[in-house]
Amino acid sequence: MKDKDFLMIPGPTPVPERVLLAMAKHPIGHRSSEFSAIIKRCHDNLKKVFQTKNDVFIYTSSGTGAMDAALGNLLNRGDKVLSLVIGNFGERWAKIAKAYGAQVDTIKADFGKAINPEDLKTRLDADVNKEIKIVTLTHNETSTGVTNPLKELVAIIKDHGALSVVDGITSIGALDCKMDEWDIDVLISGSQKGFMIPPGLAFLAASEKAWKVHEQCEYPNFYFNWSQAKKSHAADTTPWTPAVNLIVALDTALEMIIEEGLDEVFKRHTNNALMLREGIKNMGLELFVPDESIASHAITSVLPPHGVSVPDIRKTLKNDYDIVVANGQNDLKDKIFRMGTLGYVSERDVLTALASLEATIKKLKG
Amino acid sequence: MKDKDFLMIPGPTPVPERVLLAMAKHPIGHRSSEFSAIIKRCHDNLKKVFQTKNDVFIYTSSGTGAMDAALGNLLNRGDKVLSLVIGNFGERWAKIAKAYGAQVDTIKADFGKAINPEDLKTRLDADVNKEIKIVTLTHNETSTGVTNPLKELVAIIKDHGALSVVDGITSIGALDCKMDEWDIDVLISGSQKGFMIPPGLAFLAASEKAWKVHEQCEYPNFYFNWSQAKKSHAADTTPWTPAVNLIVALDTALEMIIEEGLDEVFKRHTNNALMLREGIKNMGLELFVPDESIASHAITSVLPPHGVSVPDIRKTLKNDYDIVVANGQNDLKDKIFRMGTLGYVSERDVLTALASLEATIKKLKG
Repeated sequence: MKDKDFLMIPGPTPVPERVLLAMAKHPIGHRSSEFSAIIKRCHDNLKKVFQTKNDVFIYTSSGTGAMDAALGNLLNRGDKVLSLVIGNFGERWAKIAKAYGAQVDTIKADFGKAINPEDLKTRLDADVNKEIKIVTLTHNETSTGVTNPLKELVAIIKDHGALSVVDGITSIGALDCKMDEWDIDVLISGSQKGFMIPPGLAFLAASEKAWKVHEQCEYPNFYFNWSQAKKSHAADTTPWTPAVNLIVALDTALEMIIEEGLDEVFKRHTNNALMLREGIKNMGLELFVPDESIASHAITSVLPPHGVSVPDIRKTLKNDYDIVVANGQNDLKDKIFRMGTLGYVSERDVLTALASLEATIKKLKG
Repeated sequence: MKDKDFLMIPGPTPVPERVLLAMAKHPIGHRSSEFSAIIKRCHDNLKKVFQTKNDVFIYTSSGTGAMDAALGNLLNRGDKVLSLVIGNFGERWAKIAKAYGAQVDTIKADFGKAINPEDLKTRLDADVNKEIKIVTLTHNETSTGVTNPLKELVAIIKDHGALSVVDGITSIGALDCKMDEWDIDVLISGSQKGFMIPPGLAFLAASEKAWKVHEQCEYPNFYFNWSQAKKSHAADTTPWTPAVNLIVALDTALEMIIEEGLDEVFKRHTNNALMLREGIKNMGLELFVPDESIASHAITSVLPPHGVSVPDIRKTLKNDYDIVVANGQNDLKDKIFRMGTLGYVSERDVLTALASLEATIKKLKG
């Protein structure tokens, strides 16, 4: 049905009407006091959602922009980086580090698995001269639906002394991620996920330790420059003209998150994901990540039943039931489909998705 | 009056209701065929507005992001850059070039003046070893309201052999700028100006000659990478999740520009600016750029009358007449105010602004 699609992809995610209407207002001047008040509220609420006392910068960019902003403000050519790769988004960190001329080593886990903390510890213990400057990792791997044991991994990185640079794009605002308590050095996220607004904004926060490394960065990014961002943050503004309407949307969405309560938001994501997983198993389908201890509560990857193809499932779900789910990426293309329960998703939505998926499978099995 | 502000700043500019409503719809998946069709239309129409056969990339960023994208895909450390500076935005090119480790030389004109083509010719003729790789310049200088003689300047740069890298942020879609006919090598723009949509998107097109220089760039940008952007452009998509709702807005706005006709759009901007300038002179105020041959038809800078301050004019225009005009920047702060007639501005708006400005001045003179 036209204009009826419900997005269950891992971003963009459904946007509340209250947010859409706020976004649809005429833009106001980005250097006005009215807009500064909005930015200030966003800054304050972003700290709550990031669970940090550090400044959280708002960039006008995709989430990948914030990843670039992280490494582009820390790396000098030749620096050693260790990238923990459990999927495409972990791989992206490695690519960005290489683009800055870093020497990149990786620890890879099979897709569908998480990083084993022991493997990380062994590798970092072997770095006796402390040459590894940065370890990049992904909290929730969007391409597989796996959540890394972030707290443990970050603690091991901290013991070694390297900086932990964490992609929280599909976790912040959906899964618990305590930047300060867990001692994460750089944490980034994007707007079109747990934040319930359309794509176009990205966020970054850095620890004091990361700021010291930034000071040693010879040629930091210009557009994404941390020092510029910090100066502007202190004045409740942004260095360059930001996406004004998206920031107004963010302000509204953050208000909704704070109203619901961060713990309640996390609980809702957990409940929705568990219900989805249970329903999928009950209809005889197989989960790509059966291990409950690492299964994402934001994105659930599902294997198609024997004799039914992923493209057919996606097509039927979309054409007959107005539900959009994602295909697998790269090697996992047509092998799994991915259902997001990320952001503005209620129990009713999960029931709807389960009913539609069941009807789809029945239809396709004939 | 609440929510009644009319923006006459040089961006964000007024957004048509048709565009706001398109933008307010639920986001759709950025990898869907529906969205590819939208991107394709934008790509085609952007070429028309840029007056080029080159691909025009859509970046999710501020205009400054596209400036970074221009130099960050061309420069190696130590490269020689000549920056033509007639205001803050010309200065920004020089800052970005330095951030990439370039050796930057400048030609400056007094603020309120344009670059004299003779000065450029003399400087480039002196570069007998052709060491200057890139000349950066601004088509329309937003901070002063001056339009450079772009066609002439670009021709001189072409004769020398350097690349011309042009900021068209407040010119494209407002002032005539023929990328291919004038042989501009890199041309960038931003969404919240002539394009009549809110901030958050930026555009970049590069000539074949610029692409050859890009191939020599050792460490090109990651987020803004041209080669990635080109590959995605060919598939009517973007490398990273774009600002979906802003692209839907862009699609609508470009349709409006094409409907009106590009020449009609330029004529409207010229007529509006000339009417505004005439009205301002008639009420006894002084124009900051009296020279008609270089006065911008997008932004008009005005000196306050004796005994009346710029902040008071801006405050009264906003509080009593719901019109927002911009202050001067840096050294020009409180010395001039700037009125944008950029984008979705009609003759009625100019009359309204003149009437309100006249009433403001009368009120303040007491």
